[in-house]
Amino acid sequence: MYRSRLGTDLSDITLDYVSSINDDSDIAFYDIVGSQAHTLMLFQNNIITKNDAKKILSSLETLKNEKFDSASGAEDIHELIESLVIKKAGMASGGKMHTARSRNDQVALDIRMKIRDDINIICNCLLDTVEALVSVAKNHQKTIMPLYTHLQQAQAGLLSHYLLAHADVLLRDFQRLFVTFERINQSPLGAGPVGGTSIPIDRHTTAKMLGFDGIVENSIDATSTRDFVAEYIAMVSILMTNLSKISEDFIIWSTSEFSFIELSDEFTSPSSVMPQKKNPDILELTRGKTAEVIGNLTAILTTIKGLATGYGRDLQQIKSSIWSTSKISISALLILKSVFLTMKVNEKQMKKVTESSNLIALDIAEKLVLEGIPFRVTHKIAGVLVQLAHNSKKSISKLTPIEITKSVSDTKVDPKIVSKIISTTTVVSSLKDRKSFGSSGFEEQKRMISDRIQKINQYRTDVSKRENKINSSIEDLKKQIDEIIR
Amino acid sequence: MYRSRLGTDLSDITLDYVSSINDDSDIAFYDIVGSQAHTLMLFQNNIITKNDAKKILSSLETLKNEKFDSASGAEDIHELIESLVIKKAGMASGGKMHTARSRNDQVALDIRMKIRDDINIICNCLLDTVEALVSVAKNHQKTIMPLYTHLQQAQAGLLSHYLLAHADVLLRDFQRLFVTFERINQSPLGAGPVGGTSIPIDRHTTAKMLGFDGIVENSIDATSTRDFVAEYIAMVSILMTNLSKISEDFIIWSTSEFSFIELSDEFTSPSSVMPQKKNPDILELTRGKTAEVIGNLTAILTTIKGLATGYGRDLQQIKSSIWSTSKISISALLILKSVFLTMKVNEKQMKKVTESSNLIALDIAEKLVLEGIPFRVTHKIAGVLVQLAHNSKKSISKLTPIEITKSVSDTKVDPKIVSKIISTTTVVSSLKDRKSFGSSGFEEQKRMISDRIQKINQYRTDVSKRENKINSSIEDLKKQIDEIIR
Amino acid sequence: MYRSRLGTDLSDITLDYVSSINDDSDIAFYDIVGSQAHTLMLFQNNIITKNDAKKILSSLETLKNEKFDSASGAEDIHELIESLVIKKAGMASGGKMHTARSRNDQVALDIRMKIRDDINIICNCLLDTVEALVSVAKNHQKTIMPLYTHLQQAQAGLLSHYLLAHADVLLRDFQRLFVTFERINQSPLGAGPVGGTSIPIDRHTTAKMLGFDGIVENSIDATSTRDFVAEYIAMVSILMTNLSKISEDFIIWSTSEFSFIELSDEFTSPSSVMPQKKNPDILELTRGKTAEVIGNLTAILTTIKGLATGYGRDLQQIKSSIWSTSKISISALLILKSVFLTMKVNEKQMKKVTESSNLIALDIAEKLVLEGIPFRVTHKIAGVLVQLAHNSKKSISKLTPIEITKSVSDTKVDPKIVSKIISTTTVVSSLKDRKSFGSSGFEEQKRMISDRIQKINQYRTDVSKRENKINSSIEDLKKQIDEIIR
Amino acid sequence: MYRSRLGTDLSDITLDYVSSINDDSDIAFYDIVGSQAHTLMLFQNNIITKNDAKKILSSLETLKNEKFDSASGAEDIHELIESLVIKKAGMASGGKMHTARSRNDQVALDIRMKIRDDINIICNCLLDTVEALVSVAKNHQKTIMPLYTHLQQAQAGLLSHYLLAHADVLLRDFQRLFVTFERINQSPLGAGPVGGTSIPIDRHTTAKMLGFDGIVENSIDATSTRDFVAEYIAMVSILMTNLSKISEDFIIWSTSEFSFIELSDEFTSPSSVMPQKKNPDILELTRGKTAEVIGNLTAILTTIKGLATGYGRDLQQIKSSIWSTSKISISALLILKSVFLTMKVNEKQMKKVTESSNLIALDIAEKLVLEGIPFRVTHKIAGVLVQLAHNSKKSISKLTPIEITKSVSDTKVDPKIVSKIISTTTVVSSLKDRKSFGSSGFEEQKRMISDRIQKINQYRTDVSKRENKINSSIEDLKKQIDEIIR
Repeated sequence: MYRSRLGTDLSDITLDYVSSINDDSDIAFYDIVGSQAHTLMLFQNNIITKNDAKKILSSLETLKNEKFDSASGAEDIHELIESLVIKKAGMASGGKMHTARSRNDQVALDIRMKIRDDINIICNCLLDTVEALVSVAKNHQKTIMPLYTHLQQAQAGLLSHYLLAHADVLLRDFQRLFVTFERINQSPLGAGPVGGTSIPIDRHTTAKMLGFDGIVENSIDATSTRDFVAEYIAMVSILMTNLSKISEDFIIWSTSEFSFIELSDEFTSPSSVMPQKKNPDILELTRGKTAEVIGNLTAILTTIKGLATGYGRDLQQIKSSIWSTSKISISALLILKSVFLTMKVNEKQMKKVTESSNLIALDIAEKLVLEGIPFRVTHKIAGVLVQLAHNSKKSISKLTPIEITKSVSDTKVDPKIVSKIISTTTVVSSLKDRKSFGSSGFEEQKRMISDRIQKINQYRTDVSKRENKINSSIEDLKKQIDEIIR
Repeated sequence: MYRSRLGTDLSDITLDYVSSINDDSDIAFYDIVGSQAHTLMLFQNNIITKNDAKKILSSLETLKNEKFDSASGAEDIHELIESLVIKKAGMASGGKMHTARSRNDQVALDIRMKIRDDINIICNCLLDTVEALVSVAKNHQKTIMPLYTHLQQAQAGLLSHYLLAHADVLLRDFQRLFVTFERINQSPLGAGPVGGTSIPIDRHTTAKMLGFDGIVENSIDATSTRDFVAEYIAMVSILMTNLSKISEDFIIWSTSEFSFIELSDEFTSPSSVMPQKKNPDILELTRGKTAEVIGNLTAILTTIKGLATGYGRDLQQIKSSIWSTSKISISALLILKSVFLTMKVNEKQMKKVTESSNLIALDIAEKLVLEGIPFRVTHKIAGVLVQLAHNSKKSISKLTPIEITKSVSDTKVDPKIVSKIISTTTVVSSLKDRKSFGSSGFEEQKRMISDRIQKINQYRTDVSKRENKINSSIEDLKKQIDEIIR
Repeated sequence: MYRSRLGTDLSDITLDYVSSINDDSDIAFYDIVGSQAHTLMLFQNNIITKNDAKKILSSLETLKNEKFDSASGAEDIHELIESLVIKKAGMASGGKMHTARSRNDQVALDIRMKIRDDINIICNCLLDTVEALVSVAKNHQKTIMPLYTHLQQAQAGLLSHYLLAHADVLLRDFQRLFVTFERINQSPLGAGPVGGTSIPIDRHTTAKMLGFDGIVENSIDATSTRDFVAEYIAMVSILMTNLSKISEDFIIWSTSEFSFIELSDEFTSPSSVMPQKKNPDILELTRGKTAEVIGNLTAILTTIKGLATGYGRDLQQIKSSIWSTSKISISALLILKSVFLTMKVNEKQMKKVTESSNLIALDIAEKLVLEGIPFRVTHKIAGVLVQLAHNSKKSISKLTPIEITKSVSDTKVDPKIVSKIISTTTVVSSLKDRKSFGSSGFEEQKRMISDRIQKINQYRTDVSKRENKINSSIEDLKKQIDEIIR
Repeated sequence: MYRSRLGTDLSDITLDYVSSINDDSDIAFYDIVGSQAHTLMLFQNNIITKNDAKKILSSLETLKNEKFDSASGAEDIHELIESLVIKKAGMASGGKMHTARSRNDQVALDIRMKIRDDINIICNCLLDTVEALVSVAKNHQKTIMPLYTHLQQAQAGLLSHYLLAHADVLLRDFQRLFVTFERINQSPLGAGPVGGTSIPIDRHTTAKMLGFDGIVENSIDATSTRDFVAEYIAMVSILMTNLSKISEDFIIWSTSEFSFIELSDEFTSPSSVMPQKKNPDILELTRGKTAEVIGNLTAILTTIKGLATGYGRDLQQIKSSIWSTSKISISALLILKSVFLTMKVNEKQMKKVTESSNLIALDIAEKLVLEGIPFRVTHKIAGVLVQLAHNSKKSISKLTPIEITKSVSDTKVDPKIVSKIISTTTVVSSLKDRKSFGSSGFEEQKRMISDRIQKINQYRTDVSKRENKINSSIEDLKKQIDEIIR
């Protein structure tokens, strides 16, 4: 039992070491469709006969529903699929499938098709999650809470403002992935092993059949660069760090000590000790999975760094990092959306904490500024007021005239003005007065919510267009194939 | 001597630990200009008087040329500049400079202004470097070389094709940074500590004065997110890995064993032992510096991960990583451009190696395909031909009819066809026949070079527009200030 | 102003790119002492004359107090020091200093001497910090607090137990660095550029002169491997993550919501808004600096990965990462030690939170286990008790007999037993009963504290021995030099 | 087909997100054995009855051979095994298995048992690989090759010296993992959820039963720290970077241009284009997998950084990184050992390259030093000699007296001495004269080989002792269990 489970047969260990077959199920479908487009193009350009094309295409079609056997001994899915096609279609026809092609452009094609689909899924999930945040924000435009810096209470604010901040962050994640897509959706097909081919293929046709927006032109570039992968994983890493920040907030807000929110049962685990406690495991795992994605990015950049030009087998190793990164981010978005929609907000507790914390100090200082007193002076006065209130364990509004006079002692400020301002300033008045563009005041919330809803709708249209273009290309391709093979 | 150089005074050590003053010289200028725009806006909106504005603005103007003393005891440049302004302008006026402002929106502003300038510089450097690659490619459209996969010779190719591949990669780096700029060039100014302000400021005006394209609207977002930094560093990390790949190639090409290129003296170091040898230190350092930039990215993502919302002091620590990343990439591009332009290419050696390596095998296989023979069969025939040539230490073209017959033994292929194809196939014919789009054939080179030159010119115009917009905004601001302070 | 600050002269940029002179001040002293040992050995083995040795050694001695000019144009400190020696001692003698030596073994020597000193400093700092934790723990053996899992209250515990947990973690950091030292303190001196020398040097003598425990024997290994650096930085990375965990705890404990501790003024920054608040900047920066050190480790491993054997200039780039990692960890330990010693603990709040949280539930379950009831059953009963108490907003001790009966409804347990256990269980009784080895009960604290104090003393002796050995070697060397040069 | 494969049921997605059951097959065995030891201890201390113990132990025994169903709906292996035991043994007995235990100490136990076994396996593999290197070195003590710095030829050397350098590096990896084991092999069992237990368990007994060397004493430490994981992964990361360096060398040595070695067919892949070429995929994958391990380390450190004290679910995520790191390193060592033993060395080519490269220049310089000429002068003379030879395309030994005179022109050196030294210096004489300790000369090889063989044997004994201790503990435990359950 204490021996390696690797077995004792070196050739098995070696095959396991070099094989990517277990990671390749994620791209089997793309490999088949890519091979179909290539085959169709070969036929259209008279490089293979209609009969050859028919045999290859129908063999590939049957493979779409096949469960591939990872114990086949094949090193990768490309080799496996070709061998199965040759088996079905015979060498005379099947042996022509790889005409003017190599595994090097093929694997680049598959990865690009996989990532472009993943981006579209993530983009949709992002919009769903943002929509959830905005819809919760809509219900909390009057929910007063403390805003924090350094995890210390800093200003009175609104829960909607907090939620909209994260909505804006995720909309940037959307934008980032949306432009990354443009660099992904370029066809490398037809680049050969590294230098192209003398066979009169037509790369533009296959690119169009497969729904690509363009071509990775230079054949060396098309087969041996993975900057597009690094870009994708970097964008998702940033997205995940953003999700990890909300997670951190909500873990802290879920403590007994904060008691700001209560997560839904389906997203918490019961403690093995304290049954009324709900452990925020989903949120902790989101932080942990963020670390994994950062690790994936490090691995990919480290792989690419200093790699000589031309396909190197090192690049095989990054595939599983791509799949896992996609899966983590999609799941995290799907789940967090529901976490947001189902959590209970303890509005009373949020308000109580805000009001008991003299957070109006800054508002008092700002009102004094409007009386012409330098900010650095008013800030100092507010500081003394807070200190006095803190020392005598009462709120600023309960300070005596003598105490207020003390607060302006080193200044020329009339204590009556201070008294008047104090008497007219509350957390609610503060949030009414807070009117700067994008601030946490009442007025800004409505405007921002309506604007974000519009943005979400626009972005939904943008993603749909992309998905439709790909889908209709693939459907057209399917029709052309059906005409040949029926 | 064996004690810590940190000194024994804990308060000094603590100040050194918390202070960013040594890293802040890179943003001092931006801090001053940002404060000027803010001050001008305060005056324009009747929040401070013209006299106050005049005093603050002229104090700031004199600070532009000041060398800041890092031993001032100030924790950061914002504190230092404000204290100097108060000293010069007096508390009554100078104390108003920070009205409706906090260090939290201020540092975000400075970092954004710094990065947007860095991006413009890098974009220009990228275009210079790409132009250098294309210009060298122009001279090497006939320079035959082996193309590699797995560092093994794979196909005959052209040096221009290799250089254009890297030009294309760097043009993608350009595109990436060009769109990242859009997310950087948004003004956070006026967001306050975290929740905005009740003072009637105008955030749109300051954004315009400073040449921003828009505003980071939500005040929480504006002050506490650094995804824009992570995005920038990620884009530069990818750029650097791309440069590290050319570096790796050229280090290998510079070995005695390859002898493909000779680097210019100014970019090599003499060996301490072998004076005729030139150590490619610049290229090695580029690899090493790439690792450093990847480390910077890791540090930044790790910092942001799981950080609670609201400014946290952790974020201070990432500043020096930003500056060093910018500097490394700018220097690397400037130097590599010259490395490319000054290196000597050993064309003879490249050609000799190509011709002696039976690299025409694939071309023979492809010509057989055009005779209707399945690729997997022709590939096998070519394989046997190469093996036979290899065994008898001669080139394929010298194989005897008997040997050629052996190569087709398991197939139905007529050996005469093979013979004919062999006799008409050379490295040069191969590169004439290689016509697939983006391939390494002769014809494709000219087309691609002319296309890339056009692209470079277009991109130059795009960057210039951006730079001009920023410059003219800052100049307009300067004029407005001059009118007030003269 | 919007141009690169890099200047326009390419040769300056290139020098700046390749030069490490700005990073080398940290090893100047080691370089000088190493050169003195080498010179003395050359003389002792009749490779250079006494006169040559005298001139070189006295030149080196004067350089010990020199401030090196980073604008010298020298690429590194080794070149600079040799040139200064040649200037002072003349080529006839000074030109002999580098006999049987190369920069490759020299820089490895300097880095090893630097790291071994840094390890000794860190080890001392670690023991100081552990001692501080233990001394605070000593004062808090009766300070009741909730222990957390998932940041949710889980069990009643003692503050001393918490502090001792972190003391134990840091003692492991000590052990790690203590054994890493063994691999660092090996002399590479005399390995030459890569393959050794035909000059009859004596590597054992120089190793002994410089206080090394042994020799990195194989000359290729001695000059071109940096696994010892990676090991050191990895150990410090782990140390820093450990410090970042305490920092995270204390940041949370410092919130108004938790109010468990109050940090001393000298280690907090006043909020710009809320003067009574203390921002825990030191702790936040410790988290941020941990990320930087992790980034340094990534950079170093990424640099070494896939580097061909034999010194490569890539390795120069890692030097500054080493220095910064050492400095960060030493400062963090020095400061955190004082943070621990000066913080105020809010014992009342800790106790209040513990008592109001029904944390005795697990104790009740365990007492039921001792009555022979399966743990899974008792756990369920305790769960119901907590739930009932939670629902009726009272503590478990106030539950009615009916409620208690409800808690055992699905079981065969006698509710009277439950009642009796409840009535005899308090937080204090719980901590009296908690007697498992290493548990958070009262009894274990005293034993652990006394044991850790002994360990600290033992470790102090171990470090002192090492320091003394190095110091006395260097002093002996100094004496031998003085005899020659006076 | 373009939809997420995640399915549409949120509860499935959530379960998949939180579940570690797929990663847990690696620790199922350890979980069972750990539970057996705990159960036996509970019985021995009269906490459960013999009958209870018997039922639990026999249920666990039957589970040893069970294939666990990952579709069971259980979140982890601990939950699954307990539920199966309860099913088999009934709640009355099975419900007692988790008495005085929590998943938090349980998972820590399992991970520690897994890693200690992995370390022993890796240590054995390391010794096998080192032995392979030494045995190949033994056959190549006369195989002359160029030693490189900066990938430029630097000195003449011996292949054995190169191989022994890497043997020494791997022996350090052995030492590192050997001491890491000490920190791993400590029992956390009995620490409970975080604060220990009031049930009178005996942690020392279970530790001994399971072959641990000691106990992680503090219960908070035992359940919530993972520094031991970070240490293990860091050590393996360094090991992998060391393997990646040999891989890089051998990839370069396998190029047509170098032609120093030929890898065995079983460790190369045929090129799809050039059948006589052998792509060194194993070596490339080793580099790629090194990047993955570095990514794992980054992920783990990033997870731990800033994590609040007390078990957090984030920690679940690191398990799969541990397993994959272990598997990669074990496989890499097993395979590389065979790569070394089966590769063909092209001794002729190595020697030819060495002799044609004027690598004796340094030897000439060193012989001149022994004539009393300063090294900096002799180095310059040698430089001129090499330059002259290079210019006139002949070897140094063919230089004319006039040319030799030119080489000393700026010096006072007698050209006859130079001539004499040149005429007596060859690559072979150089390697005879190279006698410095650890150098690449002939004499040093024999000594080092014999010493390393001794070291390997000593280390084998050390590992065996450890393995035996663990095995006999587990066997003793099994016997005790058998006595109860039969």
